[in-house]
Amino acid sequence: MASSLRRHAIAIFKAALRAADPEEAIHRHLMRQGDVLVAGRKRYSLPRFERVYVLGAGKAGASMARSVAGILGVRLTAGFVNVPAVHAGRLRRIELNAAGHPIPDGSGVEGARHIAQIASQAGPRDLVVCVISGGASAMLPFPAPGVTLGDKQQITKLLLDCGATIHEINCIRKHVSLLKGGGLARLAYPATVLALILSDVIGDDLDVIGSGPTVPDHTTFADARAILKKYGIWKQVPAAIRERLSSAVQETPKPGDPIFARVQNLIVGSNRLAVDAAALEARSRGFRTVVLSTSIEGEAREVARVYAAIAKEIRAVRRPVRPPACIISGGETTVTIRAGGLGGRNQEFALAAAIDIAGLSDVLILSAGTDGADGPTDAAGAIADGATIARAQRRGLDARRFLANNDSYSFLSALGGLITTGPTGTNVADVQIILVG
Amino acid sequence: MASSLRRHAIAIFKAALRAADPEEAIHRHLMRQGDVLVAGRKRYSLPRFERVYVLGAGKAGASMARSVAGILGVRLTAGFVNVPAVHAGRLRRIELNAAGHPIPDGSGVEGARHIAQIASQAGPRDLVVCVISGGASAMLPFPAPGVTLGDKQQITKLLLDCGATIHEINCIRKHVSLLKGGGLARLAYPATVLALILSDVIGDDLDVIGSGPTVPDHTTFADARAILKKYGIWKQVPAAIRERLSSAVQETPKPGDPIFARVQNLIVGSNRLAVDAAALEARSRGFRTVVLSTSIEGEAREVARVYAAIAKEIRAVRRPVRPPACIISGGETTVTIRAGGLGGRNQEFALAAAIDIAGLSDVLILSAGTDGADGPTDAAGAIADGATIARAQRRGLDARRFLANNDSYSFLSALGGLITTGPTGTNVADVQIILVG
Repeated sequence: MASSLRRHAIAIFKAALRAADPEEAIHRHLMRQGDVLVAGRKRYSLPRFERVYVLGAGKAGASMARSVAGILGVRLTAGFVNVPAVHAGRLRRIELNAAGHPIPDGSGVEGARHIAQIASQAGPRDLVVCVISGGASAMLPFPAPGVTLGDKQQITKLLLDCGATIHEINCIRKHVSLLKGGGLARLAYPATVLALILSDVIGDDLDVIGSGPTVPDHTTFADARAILKKYGIWKQVPAAIRERLSSAVQETPKPGDPIFARVQNLIVGSNRLAVDAAALEARSRGFRTVVLSTSIEGEAREVARVYAAIAKEIRAVRRPVRPPACIISGGETTVTIRAGGLGGRNQEFALAAAIDIAGLSDVLILSAGTDGADGPTDAAGAIADGATIARAQRRGLDARRFLANNDSYSFLSALGGLITTGPTGTNVADVQIILVG
Repeated sequence: MASSLRRHAIAIFKAALRAADPEEAIHRHLMRQGDVLVAGRKRYSLPRFERVYVLGAGKAGASMARSVAGILGVRLTAGFVNVPAVHAGRLRRIELNAAGHPIPDGSGVEGARHIAQIASQAGPRDLVVCVISGGASAMLPFPAPGVTLGDKQQITKLLLDCGATIHEINCIRKHVSLLKGGGLARLAYPATVLALILSDVIGDDLDVIGSGPTVPDHTTFADARAILKKYGIWKQVPAAIRERLSSAVQETPKPGDPIFARVQNLIVGSNRLAVDAAALEARSRGFRTVVLSTSIEGEAREVARVYAAIAKEIRAVRRPVRPPACIISGGETTVTIRAGGLGGRNQEFALAAAIDIAGLSDVLILSAGTDGADGPTDAAGAIADGATIARAQRRGLDARRFLANNDSYSFLSALGGLITTGPTGTNVADVQIILVG
């Protein structure tokens, strides 16, 4: 049973990976029916459009662009996407341009200018398909006139140092940059815009993913100034940025702006979609399946204890679901580094869970990252079951000591508990799975 | 809506408290039907018995004894229960004897001798009703011949210092003491034994609660010796205890021992029963209700983030249950003290949850202890909702700073978030509740 639970768990996780794969994600949400392009619930009659462009940025930009190009075929006019240097090159009619990440660079700015130019030349009879994925914020840098990349880096550092939230940092970014905060959608207007989004953001806030280049912005220049003043850093802000924020040349496009009547933002991949796919796979394998949350955060070893407690409850009193039971969730935990061991948040999750579920029969807990790289290791994550600790004891391995040393990789690799996928080319955070047979 | 959610949450928590109340717990599980005493699924025909005794120990001993005495009426022959000093006195035919806790004392030993004497004099036509509650292990001290209370204290300290688990400590305790590990049941044999147990142990392991005076013991003298040798402390153990463990005079009664054919162990109150009662109340109030677990453990502020993540999922995508939704769990979190603020694990849970659910409408999270005293405060626990952080900001209170200072009491009392019940006279750990309207 233990080995069959393990097979089920890996298959369920693999279903999440497939849904998060950039090409697969595009093909699940975008298809051609003859002359009609179907994107989610919307239909685009291709003969209506004179030209069809593909624009965008992000770590999965190359794969996304390839899939879109394949679907558009000869209807694709041209395209320009900022991608990681390793993926740079030409793809049919699309230029894949190298852009720095996580620190924006000059080549990224060059590419962003190209993208802005294509967008602004697009007319009312054109379709602009945008491909946005993780890293798009850094990889689509288009500072407002007078503002330099250095200015932007400086203010980001200032904000991080004073503990600003991601929403506050994004508010500033949107107001010193011309493509973020709906800027790309505005440039493309009056063209039709279809944005295909692979979300690496927990909760899928559209205006956070890549700083929302095609999404209405709720925030204003006044908000941006207020944030800098609230943290008392207004005086330290580079002069060009202070000037930009004070002049308030043109507000970012707001919800209700007619621009967005021509824009469809479609999430094609996300933690939620990956978790949904995993849940579907679990159900098809006969597990009574509950999705707990797709916003899991917190210290990995402590969060893991809650999962162990749920597993115990299922084993002891057959609730919240009767076995064969599967609890799935998504999100991203964190690890506070205490010592010099080797591991990652998912492996530490599995190690901590192992301690609490020790001795339970037919109970398994998996935690793994969809990018295939958990911490600085070659594992995506790990699996623990009720027999893990007994196996460790037979080999003289003290789980608590490995946990105290943040050494989950060494512990789990010795016990065959690692999940290894190699780099997956995507990232929609992590998936956690409980199975009780 | 916010205030009505709050009313619901408090009513649901109060339902848990009622089920955990010692007198209520007895009356829910023990009743008289004429000459028949009904305990759970078993029936005891009182005319069959010549004498009926009430024996036991624990912090809720006085209330439990009072309820049992009320139900037995004139059929009660006599009784002796070790209770906290504040409850000492006489109750009809039952002596309530002061016994030290958490450090056992001489008066406790005196009482334990009385209890052992009554039990051993009971014959085949007698009924011994035992009342066991939290603290019974310390409050029923009956060291084996030659072993002193000081010896027992010394070995407990040795075991705690070397990181022994509660199961290991209990194994030793059961073998140096005459009433633990089924000892009381053996003394009472061949009388009929009905043990009414108020469990303060997460998971309700019968042989852990009060070290299981009426429960079969899975462990042996050899196990006890092996534990002390494993930790390398055999030589440091007091000579009298080494001698006791080596002589292995008589093994504790094991599962399958005919003694236990005459014993019923009935849990009348526990975290699980309290959570069940809370769930019933929530359902009767129209909430779709899921019990997540009754074994929740871990660092309060991190565990709270999982609850916040579940609340977010319900709000955003109406799962794992559609609103009006209620998620209930039980267990006991812990707090790592980082600073000198005032608070408790339940209040810190609520404060941490408040940060993560900030801005969500009609979302509430409650965490509270059933003993009514959370940490060194006069609150039982606290409530946070989606507006807590906004209210705090209006008053200039920085939630993260209060959390960093372990100062949850100060934060939540300023915002009216505390739940105050006063001492409840029971303890079945904590209850956590999520409500989404």
